Amino acid sequence: MELKSIGIIHSPYNESAPFQGRHAKEMVEVEVFKEFERGLKDIERASHLIILYLCDRANRDKLEARPPHDTETHGVFATRSPNRPNPIALCTVELVERNGNILKVKGLDALNDSPLIDIKPYVPKIDSITGVNR
Amino acid sequence: MELKSIGIIHSPYNESAPFQGRHAKEMVEVEVFKEFERGLKDIERASHLIILYLCDRANRDKLEARPPHDTETHGVFATRSPNRPNPIALCTVELVERNGNILKVKGLDALNDSPLIDIKPYVPKIDSITGVNR
Repeated sequence: MELKSIGIIHSPYNESAPFQGRHAKEMVEVEVFKEFERGLKDIERASHLIILYLCDRANRDKLEARPPHDTETHGVFATRSPNRPNPIALCTVELVERNGNILKVKGLDALNDSPLIDIKPYVPKIDSITGVNR
Repeated sequence: MELKSIGIIHSPYNESAPFQGRHAKEMVEVEVFKEFERGLKDIERASHLIILYLCDRANRDKLEARPPHDTETHGVFATRSPNRPNPIALCTVELVERNGNILKVKGLDALNDSPLIDIKPYVPKIDSITGVNR
């Protein structure tokens, strides 16, 4: 299947992104292309969003990766490495402000100019494992 | 960008999937194609996984959707509707068992035969918003 970019991410990260973008204080702008703006109707009712974006500088041939501060390699599906067959990253962010087709969010770890793939509202009762016994 | 299917999901849901698959008791089999099996190394260290899959029966032209039990329509990016420009769903599941390239998981809401796109370990400190003040 062919993915289409629905927007672009303007972040301060040009070389490398923080490992735990979730806890970064930087404000990041998510630009949704005008033709998809209608899909944002009522988005401001969500306090947090899940952003899917393409890691367009990733290596798609890697099947093993060594995470930072780890001495061993693991399968890419057991890590959060951007290098993987389908390099789609997901990040839970705080929605700070919406201005038309521009969302200002906090906690997004995407490199500058990453293509935007999808936006979903974060729903704790299905997305958080708090309360799961294991 | 072209996505490649890295496997296939064998679920009991042929017509419609439960809205909150996370809380379903059904066991679902996630088959990773043999050529990608090396990417599963150490996956059993994670108790929970985030599964990305393609909603291959979705309508990609919709920009608004009406969720079940809702009387109004909202932008698709403000809902979890499968109908959206890039119909990639994500679901947090419990990893019950691994046998080679087959993962048995609980809580996956995918329709039977959905193409598998990616697997990531669930990491509470970056994926759960518990503790975020808002």
